[in-house]
Amino acid sequence: MIDLERLNREIDELAAISEAPAPVVTRVLFSEADLAARLYLKQKAREAGLIIREDAAGNIFLRWPGSEPDLPAIGTGSHIDAIPNAGRYDGVVGVLGGLEAIRSLRAEGFIPRHSIELIVFTAEEPTRFGIGCLGSRLLAGMLTVEKTDALRDNQGKSLDELRLAAGYGKEDLAGVRLANGFYNAFIELHIEQGPVLEAKGLDIGVVEKIAAPATLRLKLTGVGGHAGAVLMLERHDAGLAGAEISLAVERAALESGSPDAVGTTGVFKIAPGAVNSVPCEAWLEIDVRDTDLAARDGALEKIQQATRAICERRGVAWQLEVLNADPPAICAPELVSLVETISREKGFSVQRQISRAYHDSLFMARIAPTTMIFIPCYKGYSHRPDEYSSPQQIARGVAVLEETLRRLAT
Amino acid sequence: MIDLERLNREIDELAAISEAPAPVVTRVLFSEADLAARLYLKQKAREAGLIIREDAAGNIFLRWPGSEPDLPAIGTGSHIDAIPNAGRYDGVVGVLGGLEAIRSLRAEGFIPRHSIELIVFTAEEPTRFGIGCLGSRLLAGMLTVEKTDALRDNQGKSLDELRLAAGYGKEDLAGVRLANGFYNAFIELHIEQGPVLEAKGLDIGVVEKIAAPATLRLKLTGVGGHAGAVLMLERHDAGLAGAEISLAVERAALESGSPDAVGTTGVFKIAPGAVNSVPCEAWLEIDVRDTDLAARDGALEKIQQATRAICERRGVAWQLEVLNADPPAICAPELVSLVETISREKGFSVQRQISRAYHDSLFMARIAPTTMIFIPCYKGYSHRPDEYSSPQQIARGVAVLEETLRRLAT
Repeated sequence: MIDLERLNREIDELAAISEAPAPVVTRVLFSEADLAARLYLKQKAREAGLIIREDAAGNIFLRWPGSEPDLPAIGTGSHIDAIPNAGRYDGVVGVLGGLEAIRSLRAEGFIPRHSIELIVFTAEEPTRFGIGCLGSRLLAGMLTVEKTDALRDNQGKSLDELRLAAGYGKEDLAGVRLANGFYNAFIELHIEQGPVLEAKGLDIGVVEKIAAPATLRLKLTGVGGHAGAVLMLERHDAGLAGAEISLAVERAALESGSPDAVGTTGVFKIAPGAVNSVPCEAWLEIDVRDTDLAARDGALEKIQQATRAICERRGVAWQLEVLNADPPAICAPELVSLVETISREKGFSVQRQISRAYHDSLFMARIAPTTMIFIPCYKGYSHRPDEYSSPQQIARGVAVLEETLRRLAT
Repeated sequence: MIDLERLNREIDELAAISEAPAPVVTRVLFSEADLAARLYLKQKAREAGLIIREDAAGNIFLRWPGSEPDLPAIGTGSHIDAIPNAGRYDGVVGVLGGLEAIRSLRAEGFIPRHSIELIVFTAEEPTRFGIGCLGSRLLAGMLTVEKTDALRDNQGKSLDELRLAAGYGKEDLAGVRLANGFYNAFIELHIEQGPVLEAKGLDIGVVEKIAAPATLRLKLTGVGGHAGAVLMLERHDAGLAGAEISLAVERAALESGSPDAVGTTGVFKIAPGAVNSVPCEAWLEIDVRDTDLAARDGALEKIQQATRAICERRGVAWQLEVLNADPPAICAPELVSLVETISREKGFSVQRQISRAYHDSLFMARIAPTTMIFIPCYKGYSHRPDEYSSPQQIARGVAVLEETLRRLAT
């Protein structure tokens, strides 16, 4: 039996471990709050009798050994890091909900044949290094050593420095990659982060396809000067070049012809940032996604062309880096059918859908048959403090996950 | 005799008192660096035998009493605060150059009839409170008590709190205002902060008119959400509204019809500032200037209209505050002629010009006959670390200031 009261208490407790006061949740990779949240989870796993393993990237594996422990495991899990000014459900429902599903199976006396393993992925959110799904990318061998070595946060710190300070530095990152076949299946429970399930009054979404995200980082270098003294026609304003580019990102998504295309300039900073000074530098981070890879790459190309044209016209230098441009993931049809069937058996309304948001499942799908279980969230809000799924909505998701794990582990 | 070596050493020493390492100079109002720079100056004034007075706003008055101390004083001076990532000459040349002019007059045995007073103005730069010339505004009675009380820095601190902490809290700000007639004349030595003198190969500019600045502060509130999940047509992106407005500011200046019109969005911040999150809030600070008051007010009106139209179209809420919208200053013709004559007598090439940058003289002109002495600076650069005037260029400016003070104080 799922102990919904315990699960909700744990969601509350985890939300309180934050860099910012309630109702905001902020837990950036390897911040004090992230490290404290990791300790909290490991304690809960210990109490549940799970075996704890951590890899060199800080991914945490919490294993309930099966009766035939040499068989490939059944994986579930999600992330606990949170962007600045976020809410309490994104990622957390999949981690604490997965833990609750395992505890419930144990309490019911179920003996799994395959081991069941709950994964807490490192840095699903791109806040610190500008690249999302750091842990699952490394697990799936989708991030080269060169690219990993080149990662720097905004204080110039490398991943190696940070994981060392966080206590994950003993081993080499090359050893993080898991073999294809390590997991027999991977199932991620998650809030929808979109409005569809709530709007249609549905209980469960089962994910068939995950949209293809790409991330650009752009540095613009113009010419500064006194805002009163440099005439308009003599200016090379990096902030205005950035403003035009952010509008070009919007236009590229709107004009891509694909209904799921989205383009966002989520990071936009200028220097020196004084009211009476012409901006000499700007930094942008741009996120472009689509379920249609060709349409997304077309939008990326348009953004790059616009950047060139805008910067040349304004006499502003630019450095554009493609941080990632991942292909979409196709979920395993047999798992999609299984989750759909179980949802119906339990009397829940269910639909198949695509995920427009970015998840660790995108990368897990490259090394294991994968799908995701979505539950509704209030107005589709996510990445904001008023993100919300009700205890009942969460309970339905955990019930479907529990039954799916039971059948897969048998 | 002007001791150019001493003056340059003092410019170097003052530049080293900075919140950021060389070559950058950053000295924000009442920062540790600003307070240390004030101590440095007062020590130099003490060594020069000047009488130190400070008012409740932190303006520093360094007086060389005249033989008829009841006569109105002759004022000179400028500021020592510096915006983030600035250089070492803006303001400083007028303060240390003024000090050197006084020391030189004393060394030559000159006995002034009128007292000569060097003023170090509080916060010419608007960095901390978004409003420039705080000290000279208060001296000229151009800032109401209500407006002063309402000032907050980006940490929510009031001017009262900060001046108390800085040791200026004993008296009321209302007492800062100086009577019309307190000074018989005010002369500010300053780098041009524009390219004209250098381009024309001129030694000295004498200022006839100071451009009229206006400052807007804008807060935009849209709707946040997950960058992958919120479709383009459902968005209310505060960052994109800000981007459009910053381009409208540029357009308003370009299309004002006035050759001196400038418009700058020097502050542009968005929240939450994560690559995968739709910006829900943006803060802009906008600076608009012109020598033609009607043209400037026309540009302001256009910016306000554009803000309304952009925000309504995007479904983004806005709060627009006019922090200041000052009229231009006309310099005293007799002082302009005097500086021009003295420059010629010394064999320096000189022109009359307008100041497109903002100075304490703009407000001093409201309570005293005022003009400014400009010296060339490298490429017109200012508000950046490579701001530069040569020792010889500075020496010519100080020589003209010294002679002007001598004649006015006789």
